[in-house]
Formats: sequence, structure tokens, C-alpha cells
Amino acid sequence: MSKDKVYIFDTTLRDGEQVPGCKLDTKQKLVIAQRLDSLGVDVIEAGFPISSPGDFASVKEIARVVKNATVCGLTRSVKKDIEVAAEALQPAKRPRIHTGIGTSDSHIKYKFNSTREKIMERAVDAVKYAKSFVEDVEFYAEDAGRTENEFLARICEEVIKAGATVLNIPDTTGYCLPEEYGAKMKYLRENVRGIEKAILSCHCHNDLGLATANSISGVINGARQIECTINGIGERAGNTSLEEVVMILRQHPYLNLDTGINSKLLYSTSQMVSEKMGMPVQPNKAIVGSNAFAHSSGIHQDGVIKKRETYEIIDPHEVGVDHSSIVLTARSGRAALAYRAKKIGYELTKVQLDVVYEEFLRFADRKKEILDEDIHQIVESADVNIESLA
Amino acid sequence: MSKDKVYIFDTTLRDGEQVPGCKLDTKQKLVIAQRLDSLGVDVIEAGFPISSPGDFASVKEIARVVKNATVCGLTRSVKKDIEVAAEALQPAKRPRIHTGIGTSDSHIKYKFNSTREKIMERAVDAVKYAKSFVEDVEFYAEDAGRTENEFLARICEEVIKAGATVLNIPDTTGYCLPEEYGAKMKYLRENVRGIEKAILSCHCHNDLGLATANSISGVINGARQIECTINGIGERAGNTSLEEVVMILRQHPYLNLDTGINSKLLYSTSQMVSEKMGMPVQPNKAIVGSNAFAHSSGIHQDGVIKKRETYEIIDPHEVGVDHSSIVLTARSGRAALAYRAKKIGYELTKVQLDVVYEEFLRFADRKKEILDEDIHQIVESADVNIESLA
Repeated sequence: MSKDKVYIFDTTLRDGEQVPGCKLDTKQKLVIAQRLDSLGVDVIEAGFPISSPGDFASVKEIARVVKNATVCGLTRSVKKDIEVAAEALQPAKRPRIHTGIGTSDSHIKYKFNSTREKIMERAVDAVKYAKSFVEDVEFYAEDAGRTENEFLARICEEVIKAGATVLNIPDTTGYCLPEEYGAKMKYLRENVRGIEKAILSCHCHNDLGLATANSISGVINGARQIECTINGIGERAGNTSLEEVVMILRQHPYLNLDTGINSKLLYSTSQMVSEKMGMPVQPNKAIVGSNAFAHSSGIHQDGVIKKRETYEIIDPHEVGVDHSSIVLTARSGRAALAYRAKKIGYELTKVQLDVVYEEFLRFADRKKEILDEDIHQIVESADVNIESLA
Repeated sequence: MSKDKVYIFDTTLRDGEQVPGCKLDTKQKLVIAQRLDSLGVDVIEAGFPISSPGDFASVKEIARVVKNATVCGLTRSVKKDIEVAAEALQPAKRPRIHTGIGTSDSHIKYKFNSTREKIMERAVDAVKYAKSFVEDVEFYAEDAGRTENEFLARICEEVIKAGATVLNIPDTTGYCLPEEYGAKMKYLRENVRGIEKAILSCHCHNDLGLATANSISGVINGARQIECTINGIGERAGNTSLEEVVMILRQHPYLNLDTGINSKLLYSTSQMVSEKMGMPVQPNKAIVGSNAFAHSSGIHQDGVIKKRETYEIIDPHEVGVDHSSIVLTARSGRAALAYRAKKIGYELTKVQLDVVYEEFLRFADRKKEILDEDIHQIVESADVNIESLA
């Protein structure tokens, strides 16, 4: 059975860039956009053109240089926004305007001081107006996570009639549980007339650490686009991590879903974005953290040395990482010590290993990580016949 | 309806400490253990006593000083391990031995070169032996995520008969999807004779970014303990984040599940662990990252200024953070600028704000973040009657 494609909509340069202290200049954005194009993302959300002259210029430049991906610009449901976005996207081979409005009662009441009927009208008008500039129009129902399903379905129906090609269902506050978010997608698949003419899209935030799980639940329940960022960066606790959703689908082939991402470029892309944005990736970040494939406990190291799959589900090469590391600490066992010692030239017998290991533990209790030079010293300090080790 | 308690088993000092470069000395561990006790965790896994003399000493000291929480030590299904753990735990008010063995076919074959029958026998023997030292014995079925449900249920039955009080079902490789992990818990609840005598425990790893979602799915499906670490630290991509599961349960009261955690201590505990371990928390970490409550996009800022709940589900005070921040960048709108300007003494009229905002955008396109001193300069540069602003 051939797999269903899940489109990857990368918003590193728009939602991702909304990070305090993370301003990128146009040149940096261009480099990242070109890398995203090589990585194989389907859509690059390049910015929010009306927000500032710099952002307008960036979107325009990105539209000019991107070869394969659709280039997308964000707007509110405001005429001027849409006009400015259309102008910025003008050089793109495949332009998309992303327009929308808050649809939850909280947003309608407190943000817009409006009514459901008026919001619906603004949504439809915005989509129609965007459609007068480009074929491909994505509509976002902001705070869809807290929008009542019935009203959300009505809005979806109306914007599809107005020409929307993609329906973005954001969990703006990161509140939904995976089951809930999946159920919302399922409800829309089953209750929106004309839904077959549009693609449902997941846009999740990580305020409770659930963005990835929610997006996966979304595609299992019928969505076919995920909006995400490299390293999961973004405002507050960030967005869905591109690398996580891509590898989850690849590691669970029975879901019959896959993306067009070249996973071998994931690690280097993560490094590039982290460096250009000045946003460190924490060592224990899934897939792309510096420790993602590092084993330091004795039980795990022993297993990995015997057979990698005992503790590792992903072959590090698949995501562009050279090798899994066996890091020596006080929690390491004999197998790891023997493995690392052998790498630097010591073939220890079982008896020798016992002696060296005792010395190693004394050493390791005082030091966070044991490096190759320490091993030389440990072997020398241990009372074994070093001659025989050469 | 009163809520069901979910026990929090903190393994920051054991599984969390298995991080390359993260060695803590006994004194540092004691400080963290006391803080975890104040935080209200139910169980502190203090270490793996047999692994090194330093770890033995730490577990013993922690057992001595912890007032409320159960103190737990890890062992393999090996007599010597259990004896050493029992000795280290001897001063504890509420000691627990955590013993177990790999139960997946991959672990049985490649790690132990053994058979299911022999593994079952070792498991039962280990639990019985641990029970001869302490009342409270937790059994882990390592790699349970990849263990066939029927065999897993049989092992659970046998170790309950042998006296196990808690059954830890680890997704050791971080492979499970939330639905799958939840289904495993449900299967065990429904198919293990005697299950009412034991507590099912979730122990998830974050290799695919799903540890939190899997743990929540586990408790929704009948587990009543979550094993987790502060900041989600741990080997490879880390463990379940304590702060995330605690706040998810608190934010979704309809689940009727809660923990005994004093959430107001979450932020300071996160900071303490990060500092002592030398492990930075990435800015976009959920709940405890420095940006978790920082808003920089115009649309969001406007919403938050009008009503916090528009974009924030958690009141920052609930987790011990002073306030949500309105950070000014090129993505910020008029409302945020007016809000921040007012805070430093400028009450701008609508007309004045328009002028100052244009100047602000020119400034912000060149600078990552606009600080208070910049605002003074911007207001001065803008062609408005500053006299009237004083």
C-alpha cells in the first residue's frame, strides 16, 4: 500500500522567528529558506509582510530564490495585509496567502469585541480577496483548539466555498490533549461539506509539551499538513518540532503516512538554525540534541554495544548524525570501558578489566565525564601489566 | 467528584543524572533531594547504589535526610545489587527497592541471551529477595514498550504474587505512540489477575518527543504513577518532564486526576536543577523555559494585553514565574509598544502612537529586541510633541 503524503509547512521564518531575541536579517533568512528548500519542505512560510518593511523585503527575496517549495505569507483578515502579502509574494513560483481570524468565543469577545456572524463574514471576505491575487489560499481559524466544533465546521464550509485550499486548525494556546485534537480533525472530516476540496492542517503549540503528539494525532485523524519549525522554536514554548514529526512518521510505517523530507539533512539544518538564531538546542532535545544518541549508563551501553537496536530506535545516520556515542561516567559499566579502551589501543583481558574498572570508578566518582586521556591515566594507575596491553 | 491521585516518582537523581557531563556530588544531590521533598514528589529515586561507591553514599545520605517522600534505589535482578540497595536505603523512613529486567524479545535475546521462562524466573526471584528487605518493591519490565502484551501481563501477574507493589512499564526506547502506550496500560488493567494490589507506573523516554503525551495517555488509561525528571533531563533525549505532566493534569480538571505537587515551586526547582547539573533549559521549554510566558508577536501581545487568557492558558504565578513578558521586536504591534511606553512614563495619544510606531519599526528592523532605553530614544527621535508626554 502506498503511503499518504503529509505536507510539511515550515514556519521557522514566521512563527519561529517570533522569539524574543531572535531577529534574523534578510540574508540570514535567505540562507535558511534555501536550506529548507533542499530539506524538502513543501511550504515555507517566509514572514508576515505587513508587519515591518524588513519582513516585507525578506518575504520578497525568499519568494524570488526558492525553487521547489510553495512560499507563503501571513496576513490578518485585513485588506491592506492581503495586498501587501500579494505584492511580496509576487516573484514566487508557487505563492500562497495565509489569512485568517480568531474564531473562539474568547477571541471573538475579548480581542475583536465582535460576534460570530461578523467574524464569519470577515473570514469569507478575506479568503475571497486573497483568492483574487493567488490560487492557493490557506485559512487559519485562530484558537481553533478552543473553538466550538459546530461553529468551526460552519466557518470551514464557508471559506472552502470562498476558495480556501488549506484549512489551518491551530491549537493557539497549546491547550488540547492529543485525543481531543485528533477528535476535532475527525469531526471536521466528517461534518464539513466540501472538505474533500481542501487539506486540513495541524498547527500546534507546545505550552504543555504536547505539540508533537497533537500533530501526530491530527494526521492519524485525517489532516494532511503539519505546520512546524526547526528545533520546535517559536513564541512561548514554541511550535511543533519538524524533526520529531518527520521521524515519528518514518519510524511507524504502519501508519501509512510519510513526508517528503530528506531526513539526512535534519541534524545539520538544526545546527544551522540554532546558530543563525542564537537559540541553543538543549542537549536532551529529541532527534537533534547533542545527547540524543549519547549513552552513559552502564546497562544501556552494554546493550548498545551488543546490538544497537536494544536501546536505539533510530539509526543516527538516518538523521545525519555520525555515530552514537558511548560516554564514560560513574554510571558506566565494564563493557563500555572495555569498548572505549579498545578504541584507543588497550585490549583488556577479563581479569585486567576488573582491576582497571575499580580504578575507573574511583576516578569517575570525582569527574563528570571520562575522556580518552583519562583512560590512559587510569590504565597506568591500575595495577595491571601494561606491557601486555600494547 | 474527588480526584484520583497520580503519584509522582521523580528520577532526576537516577535516570536524570545519566546524562553525559552531568555528574553531581553527594552534597548537590542532597540539596536537590530536599527540594524535591518540598516540591511534594511522592517518590525520590535517589540512585543506583551498586553502580559506584559515590552513588551508594548519595543514596544513603538522601535516605537519611528526606522527610516525606519514599526513597527508592535501583537494582538489576541480581542478588548483590539488591543487598547493596537495601543497605543504602536502611536509614529511610519509607524505603522502596526498584528491581527488574528486560522483557522484550530484543532484550531477552541480545542482551541476556536467555529465554522468556528464565527471565520470568529471575524477575520473580528478584522481587521476592527485595521483599525480604523492604515492604515496598517496584518491578520494572525494561523495554515493556516493545514487549508483547500477553507475556508482559504474565510477568506482571507473577511479580505481583511475589510481592511487587508497583509495576513500572517503561517505554525504554521512546518508540510508542500515545494511543499504543495507553492501550498497553488498559490491556494490563484488564488482563492481569491481582492488578488491584499494585500501582501501574508510566516511565517514558523522549526520543521522539512523545514522553509527556505517552505518560498522560498512560494515566488516562489506568496508571497511577508517572516517573519523570525536572526539566525532562535524562539519557539521550531525556525522560518525561515533571513540570509538563503536573500542569497538564491541573489544566484539564475534567480528567479527575491530580498530583500532590506544589506547582508554585516548579520554576525555582527547574532553575536549581539546571544550575547544579550545568544543563541549560532551552528558552522554549514548556512551563519552565525563559520564554514560556514571553509574547513578542503583535497579534498575541495585543490579545494578552486585552485579556491574558486569550493566549495564555497557565497563569505564570501558578508555576512560580513573576509575570508574563511583553517583549518588543519588529513583530510587535502598536498595543505592545503603547503598553511598554506607558510603563516607563509615556501616555501616547493615538496620533502620537502612530508616529512613534513608524520610528519603532525602523529601529526594530535593525535590532533583535527593543529595551526600555531604546523606547526613550525612539520617542525622542519621533517627531511628536514630547512635552505633552511627560
